[in-house]
Amino acid sequence: MRTPDLAAPDATLTKLGSGYLNSVKSHARLAHTANGVRKLAKNLSRATIEVDVKNIIIVTKHHDELLIYLTREVAEWLLRQKLDLDVYVDRGFQKSKRFDAAGIIHDYPAGEGRLKFWTKELTLLCPEKFDLVISLGGDGTVLYISALFQRIVPPVICFSLGSLGFLTNFKFEQFRESLQRVFDKGVKAMLRMRFTARVYKADGTFMCENQILNELVVDRGPSPFVSMLEIYGNGDLLTVAQADGVIVATPTGSTAYSLSAGGSLVHPGVSAISITPICPHTLSFRPILLPDSMTLKVKLPARSRSTAWASFDGRARVELKKGDYVMVKASLYPFPTIVASNTEFIDSVSRTLNWNVREQQKPFV
Amino acid sequence: MRTPDLAAPDATLTKLGSGYLNSVKSHARLAHTANGVRKLAKNLSRATIEVDVKNIIIVTKHHDELLIYLTREVAEWLLRQKLDLDVYVDRGFQKSKRFDAAGIIHDYPAGEGRLKFWTKELTLLCPEKFDLVISLGGDGTVLYISALFQRIVPPVICFSLGSLGFLTNFKFEQFRESLQRVFDKGVKAMLRMRFTARVYKADGTFMCENQILNELVVDRGPSPFVSMLEIYGNGDLLTVAQADGVIVATPTGSTAYSLSAGGSLVHPGVSAISITPICPHTLSFRPILLPDSMTLKVKLPARSRSTAWASFDGRARVELKKGDYVMVKASLYPFPTIVASNTEFIDSVSRTLNWNVREQQKPFV
Amino acid sequence: MRTPDLAAPDATLTKLGSGYLNSVKSHARLAHTANGVRKLAKNLSRATIEVDVKNIIIVTKHHDELLIYLTREVAEWLLRQKLDLDVYVDRGFQKSKRFDAAGIIHDYPAGEGRLKFWTKELTLLCPEKFDLVISLGGDGTVLYISALFQRIVPPVICFSLGSLGFLTNFKFEQFRESLQRVFDKGVKAMLRMRFTARVYKADGTFMCENQILNELVVDRGPSPFVSMLEIYGNGDLLTVAQADGVIVATPTGSTAYSLSAGGSLVHPGVSAISITPICPHTLSFRPILLPDSMTLKVKLPARSRSTAWASFDGRARVELKKGDYVMVKASLYPFPTIVASNTEFIDSVSRTLNWNVREQQKPFV
Amino acid sequence: MRTPDLAAPDATLTKLGSGYLNSVKSHARLAHTANGVRKLAKNLSRATIEVDVKNIIIVTKHHDELLIYLTREVAEWLLRQKLDLDVYVDRGFQKSKRFDAAGIIHDYPAGEGRLKFWTKELTLLCPEKFDLVISLGGDGTVLYISALFQRIVPPVICFSLGSLGFLTNFKFEQFRESLQRVFDKGVKAMLRMRFTARVYKADGTFMCENQILNELVVDRGPSPFVSMLEIYGNGDLLTVAQADGVIVATPTGSTAYSLSAGGSLVHPGVSAISITPICPHTLSFRPILLPDSMTLKVKLPARSRSTAWASFDGRARVELKKGDYVMVKASLYPFPTIVASNTEFIDSVSRTLNWNVREQQKPFV
Repeated sequence: MRTPDLAAPDATLTKLGSGYLNSVKSHARLAHTANGVRKLAKNLSRATIEVDVKNIIIVTKHHDELLIYLTREVAEWLLRQKLDLDVYVDRGFQKSKRFDAAGIIHDYPAGEGRLKFWTKELTLLCPEKFDLVISLGGDGTVLYISALFQRIVPPVICFSLGSLGFLTNFKFEQFRESLQRVFDKGVKAMLRMRFTARVYKADGTFMCENQILNELVVDRGPSPFVSMLEIYGNGDLLTVAQADGVIVATPTGSTAYSLSAGGSLVHPGVSAISITPICPHTLSFRPILLPDSMTLKVKLPARSRSTAWASFDGRARVELKKGDYVMVKASLYPFPTIVASNTEFIDSVSRTLNWNVREQQKPFV
Repeated sequence: MRTPDLAAPDATLTKLGSGYLNSVKSHARLAHTANGVRKLAKNLSRATIEVDVKNIIIVTKHHDELLIYLTREVAEWLLRQKLDLDVYVDRGFQKSKRFDAAGIIHDYPAGEGRLKFWTKELTLLCPEKFDLVISLGGDGTVLYISALFQRIVPPVICFSLGSLGFLTNFKFEQFRESLQRVFDKGVKAMLRMRFTARVYKADGTFMCENQILNELVVDRGPSPFVSMLEIYGNGDLLTVAQADGVIVATPTGSTAYSLSAGGSLVHPGVSAISITPICPHTLSFRPILLPDSMTLKVKLPARSRSTAWASFDGRARVELKKGDYVMVKASLYPFPTIVASNTEFIDSVSRTLNWNVREQQKPFV
Repeated sequence: MRTPDLAAPDATLTKLGSGYLNSVKSHARLAHTANGVRKLAKNLSRATIEVDVKNIIIVTKHHDELLIYLTREVAEWLLRQKLDLDVYVDRGFQKSKRFDAAGIIHDYPAGEGRLKFWTKELTLLCPEKFDLVISLGGDGTVLYISALFQRIVPPVICFSLGSLGFLTNFKFEQFRESLQRVFDKGVKAMLRMRFTARVYKADGTFMCENQILNELVVDRGPSPFVSMLEIYGNGDLLTVAQADGVIVATPTGSTAYSLSAGGSLVHPGVSAISITPICPHTLSFRPILLPDSMTLKVKLPARSRSTAWASFDGRARVELKKGDYVMVKASLYPFPTIVASNTEFIDSVSRTLNWNVREQQKPFV
Repeated sequence: MRTPDLAAPDATLTKLGSGYLNSVKSHARLAHTANGVRKLAKNLSRATIEVDVKNIIIVTKHHDELLIYLTREVAEWLLRQKLDLDVYVDRGFQKSKRFDAAGIIHDYPAGEGRLKFWTKELTLLCPEKFDLVISLGGDGTVLYISALFQRIVPPVICFSLGSLGFLTNFKFEQFRESLQRVFDKGVKAMLRMRFTARVYKADGTFMCENQILNELVVDRGPSPFVSMLEIYGNGDLLTVAQADGVIVATPTGSTAYSLSAGGSLVHPGVSAISITPICPHTLSFRPILLPDSMTLKVKLPARSRSTAWASFDGRARVELKKGDYVMVKASLYPFPTIVASNTEFIDSVSRTLNWNVREQQKPFV
């Protein structure tokens, strides 16, 4: 808690959260509060964070030689640019000839002791050590960062090496200007909702937990039989899905697998959970959006003919036996991506998906 | 402001809204605040309102004789049941033989002076006069109530005469028990988002304003030419829709026309605006959900071949000439409907739409 | 009947059609015949027509000055190129200064008496006069040609002035080479199915008839009430559509309005009728394809709340009162368009609709 | 060839198929022939087959005890009903105590020598031995019959034990009346198109062949990577599908997996091949219908990241390595199912899928 002023909103919100609303004397007051919440949500999405960057971490794919060179380029620039900065690169690069850590220090002795190496343990256990994450790669690298930071996530600036993606909204060619602006002016971050997904055995035994940036998928895997999955919201049975599977997606995930399966596009500023069936066996199983305050349960019923498989952001497939279930709810740890422009969501959707883009304005007939 | 405690959240939210978030020193704090907002939104949706009902208004369709009798039945019960209560019925019933106001007072003299008659002027100008609205009819009657109350809306209890609908979630047969429970225990209300839609001429002249519960539709009307509509979000051009029209829907409206046009189902607890094209001329114009903090503009561009038509909850068609536009944003005046059960949204969707309902559990093959 | 050989298939088909199949002694024989029919259909689609072009008609939009010049260019080339050819252009051009008929003959006296002018009466009453139709314009011009030729249609070569469309598959820039090839080598024509649509009053009175190349649409027009339409196939009630309307489309029409409403793409070589609802009020009203041997009836039932409107290829709106109906069946008069390449359907779909085209091969995540 | 008259159409069709259409002198003649083909197709679908049933085969699921009893009941009735009839039941029942073959003969000695047992070898090698197939079970049993009869298929009468399905259109309770009608009046059969699917290695080596009644599916199987599949029509590349997979379906299969993946319903009388992508990675990959005279090739390109899996009517999964491909075309051996009523397709679609069925006729709002 750095300033008393800043403490106030959180403290008040906590109080509000714990009981003040249990009994309100006036519907007008309730409406007034609802408007306040909406305004607050809006301002949250516009808030600028003054980041005092002391420790920066660069994440990239391991085995791409080009990326090693680019990581080196960024690291070297950072060390020279900002003298109070420690730069962490992948421990795997420590002995890489291509990265040539010794060469960096040799060329620039003032970097001595400030070029460091991160491991998965460090990101999992001490995420608050870092003030900024630099992502070098595609949207897949951003998902990898989400997997690394299973609790709190520092603001992430996502550089694209080729064309821009949904998440990779900064051009690598301009990394110097972009990072300088972060140091000078702070950042506006989109707090992307993540899910906390917990898998339990039929008898209630906890199995594993994952923070998810895109989606939970429960599907039939290699089984030829269709899945029958029970979906509960806050403990109530919502529906039974007979389908190849079910996708539970965040707004960020709405442009990924959920979209392929027929889901709507959802702006990351919307607080909602999408449920999209994969090849459902009823004509009427339209995708549905639920409030992100809801806790969902996806359960393979005991009467199911076969097992099912859960996967988290496309990774970590877990087999569900009869009666096993996954609990999903909005995570306490959102994923803050640094905003490049106010229209980046629509821009990315138009650019990458050709959303409503026509090559020519010729009418059909 | 009835109690200091209750004042606090609103005051704080107002302060938060006005600038405290302009510059935050820590992303962790921002995430913490975001979680607080989510929790607050959740509690808002669970809040119980202690309604001290002194003035009640009954709204129904005018020209249905059965409804006149039923209105009489409810009014009479209310007058006898709660002696400090004034009951307002449609001014049109004042001289109705079927309603027989004199007969009610004759049979129950203590009702004298407490059976009153409402007019459209009264609901428009003095909405805070009423503590509770009773809707007798179908979902159309609920839309009519939304049109009557263009500013603040008292909690609405929606009785269905036949099968339950999306909005009509209380059975008329049980009106005595349901209303008694409201008087005794207060109500839980779903604060349904409404839109404020304002129509402007090309030169910026204001034309008219409507509060919308379901959707704004801008379509080509009887014109054989497809509409070309520019859609802006917070001033930025999002896309140009070439289509028969565009539907801008609230979550409540997601089960209505938007659904017919291919939109997703959206739980009324989700704070989002749906944009769904009607018969778009691109294969890739997938429906999209935007944050309810966004201000949308739907504009008929100057280069358009023909005019377009705007309608609001299916009423009040207005012709848009070239350059005219409609501004849409979340209304300050939500529409509070009294909740009958926690799962009423899913129940209504399954019941009324056969959402994911199969007559038999036989697999396709 | 030009050759006895050619007569044989038709005569046999007629015999087959009239009763030989009423009773077959062997399922194997039936299967064998079915394979023969498929093979015949395939060969039909590959047949090359040796056109002995003596009379050619050029159709274009009237009021576009550019098109007058281009028509002049084509007509002049044709007169000079093939001396036994009569060229018909729009009667509206006869006195056009821009077209300058006298100038053409002045410059090329051998054209005297061979430059002629067509009227709607001529195309309606004497379609067999023409051996070839040249379409100059967009897909709309091709629909106009379909309207002009309500009975037999000569082969149509469709030149596009800008980018190629679904129907406009020849580039205007290459009209000389393309037409020369037609004269020298004959043509391969796609026999596009048309519908014959007949409108009847509730009491069976015949109202009007149209040959349709794209689609019949029956919709609610400016009425705010949804249409309820009964759809019959060969006299049996198939379903009752509650929707903004219903589209009955040919394969050619599958890329037009039907596609906007969610219909599948149908290759013009498929013999099928598409029924696609417009904004249906049930989640399960999936588009359906029926055999082109079926006679459909779309009827506004007597119990309907309002009238409906029928339109034919987007033209000629007719109001349907309660009980009125439209009969639709495959026309005896298909629309033969000259084929530019074997893959022109898929090419046009990919080019004009971006069908399954991605700007980049980047996976979603 | 039983009668000269019947021979004529086939012979003519064969001639027509082999070259008569290579060069036609008149487009009017071509149109005339096209109409003849349509009429012939229509009559084919109405043809009644006089079946002289001497050998009948009963197919059912093996391991369901109830089905053994029901098979016994049908077999016994058949032996007694028609003395010139041989009845084949599953070889697996020969020693079954429940079936008790000896008991049947003991109770009815005239059945001696007429109760016989079939094996897979018999159905594969001597399909013309049988004049009628009786299917006892669900739609899955019908698919099994299609697998048994890989060449010519006798007419199949499909009895449903529970509610009627898409293919199981006769009620078991009425088997006596239904079969008696077949013996007395012959049958009308729907000649359902099957596919011949052949799998080849990248180097052209033939792998295996299947007759398919519903669909070929090529999907990514357990691979986490999306499939990239090249689809060719008559040798031309139609598109490259980036998707979970691709479904190539017959009209019969249009109500199965293709429907789940978003395909249109296709009447079995339509001669078309449906291509429906499973979760495609482009917004614009709308399902497409192609003529059944087309030969399709689905190929896993050499540059693919992983293998794919082909399955045939949900059975017989085959792994495709890079460069392997499947050729699909209309089979010479359709699957004739006996027609129960003229509207059975629409009836089955409405009944089993709730196609456009509303529980109540209440409009959305």
